[in-house]
Amino acid sequence: MGYIITIARQFSSGGRELGRRLADELGIAYYDKEILADIQKKTPYSLSYIEEVSENRPILLPPINYGNSFALYTDVSLQQNIDVHTAQNNIIREYVEKSNCVIIGRGADYTLRDKKPFRIFVYADMESRIKRCREREEDHHKYNDKQLAKRIRAIDKKRRDYYEYYTGLKWGEKDNYDVMINTSNCDIKKLAHNLALFIKDATKEN
Amino acid sequence: MGYIITIARQFSSGGRELGRRLADELGIAYYDKEILADIQKKTPYSLSYIEEVSENRPILLPPINYGNSFALYTDVSLQQNIDVHTAQNNIIREYVEKSNCVIIGRGADYTLRDKKPFRIFVYADMESRIKRCREREEDHHKYNDKQLAKRIRAIDKKRRDYYEYYTGLKWGEKDNYDVMINTSNCDIKKLAHNLALFIKDATKEN
Repeated sequence: MGYIITIARQFSSGGRELGRRLADELGIAYYDKEILADIQKKTPYSLSYIEEVSENRPILLPPINYGNSFALYTDVSLQQNIDVHTAQNNIIREYVEKSNCVIIGRGADYTLRDKKPFRIFVYADMESRIKRCREREEDHHKYNDKQLAKRIRAIDKKRRDYYEYYTGLKWGEKDNYDVMINTSNCDIKKLAHNLALFIKDATKEN
Repeated sequence: MGYIITIARQFSSGGRELGRRLADELGIAYYDKEILADIQKKTPYSLSYIEEVSENRPILLPPINYGNSFALYTDVSLQQNIDVHTAQNNIIREYVEKSNCVIIGRGADYTLRDKKPFRIFVYADMESRIKRCREREEDHHKYNDKQLAKRIRAIDKKRRDYYEYYTGLKWGEKDNYDVMINTSNCDIKKLAHNLALFIKDATKEN
């Protein structure tokens, strides 16, 4: 029985750390930003462009109106977005064909829905997320708590928009996940250890 | 370090079974319907009345209008509801003073918020809940799947209304819980075992 684990997470909730530790505990591959380089190999775009596009839903421009008729036109930027997204989905599928793994974000729970991955959503209260942000981000001192909270919410919004655009599902809605974990005041190392035990046990044949 | 665990759950999602098994695994008390008899000791009401009231939010009647003036009146039924709810809260607090325990439903996560209980929400997809219902309820054969789903949703609505009336919080909203578990196709015995390990570990002093 294999392990395919997808982790969606609120920004600064510790989802990435949980994923990395979970992959270590289970001895399986871990994919996060690694995917960007693989997308680059399969598309004509630069790494920075891919990074930008792979985390944002496309901006849909209104169709251009010539006189009274609407022109049928190709939105180049939309097409590039779709190229990157398609390449990303293909690569995610290749990852799970190759070996057991943990995949962070990118709507992988939806991309892999026919494989029935173990779908985790990680969240935390704003106080813990600000604290985590301050511990990890070098430029945190530029912002007060209110400004940091605003930045955190803006990144969540980007993730939500991206997920909902490509999946048609609601990001962070319980029905789309197998377990949702509140990491406020949580020791992520212990959590990863016990969650790994649980996943091993749950996927063991009876 | 003590264990105070509250379990809120969608109807027929296995939350009660999980709670019972978790209490067994941790060797602690388990409170569900037991509370009704304790409420009876502290109020003048019958067991069946208490059962009815302790699971429903009060029905608020519109004030009676005499001519053009509104009468200030005491709604007896509302007062009785509040009596039962107050007795219930006091008993829940006595339980946790007495020993570690698992408490099912009744907004105990909110009642005990100053004790920082470990708050679990249990849910499952409708297919699994119908299956569980058919396995457990003797009169299930009277209903087809559509009718059973309707009954299940009606019971959830009662729980939601009750919780939201007494707590002002949203039932099933992730911020109000520490972990939310989807029990669709889940072995609850294994889940209880591993969740107990996790709780033991999480509450262990570093």
